[in-house]
Amino acid sequence: MSSTGPVISERVSMQDGAGGRAMRSLVEEIFLPGFESDQEGVIGLSAMDDGAAIRLGDRWLVLTTDSHVVHPIFFPGGDIGRLAIAGTVNDLAVMGATRVLGLTCAAIIEEGLPKTILRRIQRSIREACAEAGTSIVTGDTKVMGRGELDGIILNTSGIGMCERVVSDAGLHPGDRIIVTGSLGDHGMAVMAVRHELELDGDLESDVMPINDLIDAALRVGGSGIVAMKDPTRGGVASALHEMATKSHVGIVIAEVCLPVRAAVRSASELLGIDPLRIANEGKALLGVRPDRAADVLDALRHHPKGRDAAIIGECFAERAGSVVLDTGFGRRLLTEADGEPLPRIC
Amino acid sequence: MSSTGPVISERVSMQDGAGGRAMRSLVEEIFLPGFESDQEGVIGLSAMDDGAAIRLGDRWLVLTTDSHVVHPIFFPGGDIGRLAIAGTVNDLAVMGATRVLGLTCAAIIEEGLPKTILRRIQRSIREACAEAGTSIVTGDTKVMGRGELDGIILNTSGIGMCERVVSDAGLHPGDRIIVTGSLGDHGMAVMAVRHELELDGDLESDVMPINDLIDAALRVGGSGIVAMKDPTRGGVASALHEMATKSHVGIVIAEVCLPVRAAVRSASELLGIDPLRIANEGKALLGVRPDRAADVLDALRHHPKGRDAAIIGECFAERAGSVVLDTGFGRRLLTEADGEPLPRIC
Repeated sequence: MSSTGPVISERVSMQDGAGGRAMRSLVEEIFLPGFESDQEGVIGLSAMDDGAAIRLGDRWLVLTTDSHVVHPIFFPGGDIGRLAIAGTVNDLAVMGATRVLGLTCAAIIEEGLPKTILRRIQRSIREACAEAGTSIVTGDTKVMGRGELDGIILNTSGIGMCERVVSDAGLHPGDRIIVTGSLGDHGMAVMAVRHELELDGDLESDVMPINDLIDAALRVGGSGIVAMKDPTRGGVASALHEMATKSHVGIVIAEVCLPVRAAVRSASELLGIDPLRIANEGKALLGVRPDRAADVLDALRHHPKGRDAAIIGECFAERAGSVVLDTGFGRRLLTEADGEPLPRIC
Repeated sequence: MSSTGPVISERVSMQDGAGGRAMRSLVEEIFLPGFESDQEGVIGLSAMDDGAAIRLGDRWLVLTTDSHVVHPIFFPGGDIGRLAIAGTVNDLAVMGATRVLGLTCAAIIEEGLPKTILRRIQRSIREACAEAGTSIVTGDTKVMGRGELDGIILNTSGIGMCERVVSDAGLHPGDRIIVTGSLGDHGMAVMAVRHELELDGDLESDVMPINDLIDAALRVGGSGIVAMKDPTRGGVASALHEMATKSHVGIVIAEVCLPVRAAVRSASELLGIDPLRIANEGKALLGVRPDRAADVLDALRHHPKGRDAAIIGECFAERAGSVVLDTGFGRRLLTEADGEPLPRIC
């Protein structure tokens, strides 16, 4: 690898891992070829959803994987262990698999890491598993030398089961968009620590498994819940863009309806980061048929993890694939980020 | 973290990731607590097997995970992509799940890595998947900054299905130990590149998915195949120790029967590394009832991937938990390595 090598676009950049358009291009251009044609009864890689689904008799087995590289490892409201469990459980849940059969945990550890740190992480993995009603069933441990890796990486994969898979592509004109709680908490909490921001309000990550919350919504909403996605990397903006594009609808979001905590709003102004473009780790976006929206919202709000749930938008046949923000004074396109160059927030 | 911090044993060392006794201690001491009691119908973390098994009706779903951190990324006979697929497929296969339902692939990439390298890796992932009759069904991409990660890490998880789970703990006195081919090829090929050894013979990694080979053995051996394990990190010595300890038998191995290629033998003498203690990535150890051993060996040898298969040892009631090497001149204990400090060979 010489430093006067290929042009810049021919090297992987931080944006390529940030959950936006750049990452999707990288995956489509490099990882997808040869895996486009899924077997029968499989929702696979080409669906570019939060996970895969494999038909087993009259049910679906849902499978997902995530690597977690957050820095710092411990942050207000959580740590890399809780993040790993919540991330994987929530990816299963938004595909409809709220019953988690088991999780894997693969740790890659930097040589010299104090074992006390591993013990703290393991404890929070255990607690998050208990909260999600599941367990680590198998794992892997690798150690890399100093200078080869900074800290620790956790990869978690998970399998769940359900009767109906909910994709992120099922929206129709008229459907309502519901978010299960406040926006931007995780990303802003991590960024504040990294920028050593001193804030008045409490800035805490929302990291939590929400399979129980989604289960409560599905019990009430049934097949009226037509699409789900968790707005992690790239935030709500990226997630809605993906849903709108895949569903061939336009989405209009009302800014006044967006649940954003005061502390997050302040930090976002200080840091110049839009809360719609930063990761959430305990939230989901639901697309719901108009006649079921009020009941689903009610069910969410009666759940301890869904008190701040809100209907934030609606789907239209016009402007398919785009997301429009209604500010109250006018409307503007919420462009899809190429991928914010924010390393290691999840 | 001050440099005059905790005593050395309280920090993670390279040995802790090398597949030997040190790694098992780390896992038992830190990762296992709280996950000892498996749910009913689940073979979970406490079994410390190559994967987990979950009962689904009258069948078993087998789940496994592995991270791959090999350096160099490309080595004689393969690369990190082929290694990842083979490693995960073989972990499923040695638990009896030779039919692979799907694999996940999570890539963690260093910023600046040329995309041509990713394309080469993806191609070999695709080829290895085709060879194993499976596919990548979902994935994840993260990018870490320069100085945070050296190169690329792949994590692959996999699910498979079978009617009967084969554990690594099912050996009885009298059972024969069969290895499916030559020993030490992968580890020695990688170490030779890293030491820039110039050798006469061809030193090539054995990395390949062998679910088809194991399926051929199971078709002939049936329930007469009572234990399986793939001798990756820590090599045959570690794998046999684990099988002997869990099965409460002693294992005697005949040195003269061990299939070791001439090039591996030469390299092992030059480098001072025992071929029994270094990783294989396309081999399995089978414990077979004495009356089925000849037929299983025959089935293996008639398969293109099993031509060098050999019966290498036998199980005894005496010296439970130990492995003895019969050199032809006498017998000596094959001690379990604490974990060779060989970073990044798989």
